[in-house]
Amino acid sequence: MKIAVDTSGGEFAPHEIVKGAIKAAQEYNADIILVGKKSLLHVLAGRHLNKLNISIVNASQTIGFHEHPVEALRKKTRSSIAIGIKLLKEGKASAFVSAGNTGAVLAAAFFGLGKIEGVERPALVSVIKLVPQSPVLMIDAGANADCRPSHLVQFARLANIYAQHILGIKSPKIGLLSNGEEEAKGNRLTKETHQLLKEQADLNFIGNVEGHDLSTRAADVIVTDGFTGNIVLKTVEGLGDSLLKMRQIGHAFNSAYHLRGRALLADVGLGSLVKGMDYREYGGACLLGVKGNVIVSHGRSQAVAIKNAIGLASRTAEQDICRLIAEAHNG
Amino acid sequence: MKIAVDTSGGEFAPHEIVKGAIKAAQEYNADIILVGKKSLLHVLAGRHLNKLNISIVNASQTIGFHEHPVEALRKKTRSSIAIGIKLLKEGKASAFVSAGNTGAVLAAAFFGLGKIEGVERPALVSVIKLVPQSPVLMIDAGANADCRPSHLVQFARLANIYAQHILGIKSPKIGLLSNGEEEAKGNRLTKETHQLLKEQADLNFIGNVEGHDLSTRAADVIVTDGFTGNIVLKTVEGLGDSLLKMRQIGHAFNSAYHLRGRALLADVGLGSLVKGMDYREYGGACLLGVKGNVIVSHGRSQAVAIKNAIGLASRTAEQDICRLIAEAHNG
Repeated sequence: MKIAVDTSGGEFAPHEIVKGAIKAAQEYNADIILVGKKSLLHVLAGRHLNKLNISIVNASQTIGFHEHPVEALRKKTRSSIAIGIKLLKEGKASAFVSAGNTGAVLAAAFFGLGKIEGVERPALVSVIKLVPQSPVLMIDAGANADCRPSHLVQFARLANIYAQHILGIKSPKIGLLSNGEEEAKGNRLTKETHQLLKEQADLNFIGNVEGHDLSTRAADVIVTDGFTGNIVLKTVEGLGDSLLKMRQIGHAFNSAYHLRGRALLADVGLGSLVKGMDYREYGGACLLGVKGNVIVSHGRSQAVAIKNAIGLASRTAEQDICRLIAEAHNG
Repeated sequence: MKIAVDTSGGEFAPHEIVKGAIKAAQEYNADIILVGKKSLLHVLAGRHLNKLNISIVNASQTIGFHEHPVEALRKKTRSSIAIGIKLLKEGKASAFVSAGNTGAVLAAAFFGLGKIEGVERPALVSVIKLVPQSPVLMIDAGANADCRPSHLVQFARLANIYAQHILGIKSPKIGLLSNGEEEAKGNRLTKETHQLLKEQADLNFIGNVEGHDLSTRAADVIVTDGFTGNIVLKTVEGLGDSLLKMRQIGHAFNSAYHLRGRALLADVGLGSLVKGMDYREYGGACLLGVKGNVIVSHGRSQAVAIKNAIGLASRTAEQDICRLIAEAHNG
């Protein structure tokens, strides 16, 4: 089981990406394919190549953040994204992790791998850990800005499988993100979706959930359109960043005044929340519904985020999520 | 200038509401009308009635959180919400504050006060203070779940006036909440709205902003539909609640181990963020576009939230926001 990693995509590429991949190879014993500029990768990963399960596949081109996804893919057939997806398609890799241009990764996955039969709209599922030991899945985290009710029902079904096999929850509680708990609350999309979800006998639909339920144990899966999901995730990330900065200021104070031990104890609970709000921790979102395991990482991912994304990619591939989705959709 | 306060609405009514109103009368020298059950209010506010500018208007009925807003208003003509809005309409109060059933407050305001001429959809504007000294206005915080692009343009215009006169910003930077900075990013609603906002020569439109921009100084006003706005606000509130709990645990540790002074210094930055995430601090959202100043407070508001909401109501009335909106819409 090999995990292909895009070393050219992301703000901190290639150094932090390679560092994260090496960490993953060391800690998880993961088998890694570094996809990117060969000569550079030989320099960066050189001394680890013989000791760890790390190989290199050359991709001479890079798709930048501001390039138009589809145009860029058409022009740059030697880009790390195009080649990473190709490795997946050819079965040379079991999963692909990229912190590059999200639109380009999604487009490459849609066109290169294709949708699993029966899936109308692949969607991004993100793991949110605001309550320690109780991660919540949010779907769609940003793949589909405009959705119909039937799409949201399918998102629920995709995340249901993911929650069962990645989080190990037998009957995941599925909530529909809305602006009120009551059935009648919502916009047109959620009101219609609510009625459809109620009819799905095989899903444990618990009704509407609200924004604050990201911080509670109300639901295991939160279903929403990709527009709302993306905004909510980035709101949480932004607050996480602010907290992280304040915590660093706090630590600087503590260390300047030689406050240790017990003062730090008080900080443990906060630390776990900050960690949960930090995209570096959950590593990335998994694209569900295409024929292959694709993990989209945050553009600002550094080594730890990439390591965690590779961990998520490994678990996703191990559980053979694609096959489970295919089975669920083609009975 | 009198502020009418609904003492029957909200989870902590009437005790915390009355407490907050008394605090506001003491701290801001506000002139308060307590609207609610007369005999009870005499007991609760009794000893302050002669010393402070506090009077009582009887409202024998209460609209509960789970009642259907329009039906409840029709049946309960002696409810605190109906009577509070009536005081506004008759000019006996300059503003009305309620932590009761939001739908009922909005409906009472729409039907009882009417829309300002030229305003298509009144909207809720909320003050968010995640960056100290740089509050951001979010509009719509939940009045309109389904919106058209022209509605969002009008929200921008309403909040522009509010930011100028309540926040004192000469040319407020207006951002459109979307799932990407680029003009082409968004759902159908935001893509069309973006094009319309670009054409408004009198607005300082800075383009799309993202979820994390709630924690930056990117925009003074964030425009979105009431569905998304409500979810984002409740997400922030939920995290604020979690942080508050953790901070309390931290303080308990500090005090148990006699860590004071410097250890608490480290906590100041965090404290200000937690405060900013706390609905108790900003007190409430202001309904803009109706003929009267209406402040909708969080259903879980306690004394401090109510006091702050009364402060916001006073500033809104002092600035005569309704007249400014009417002038802007009827040139």
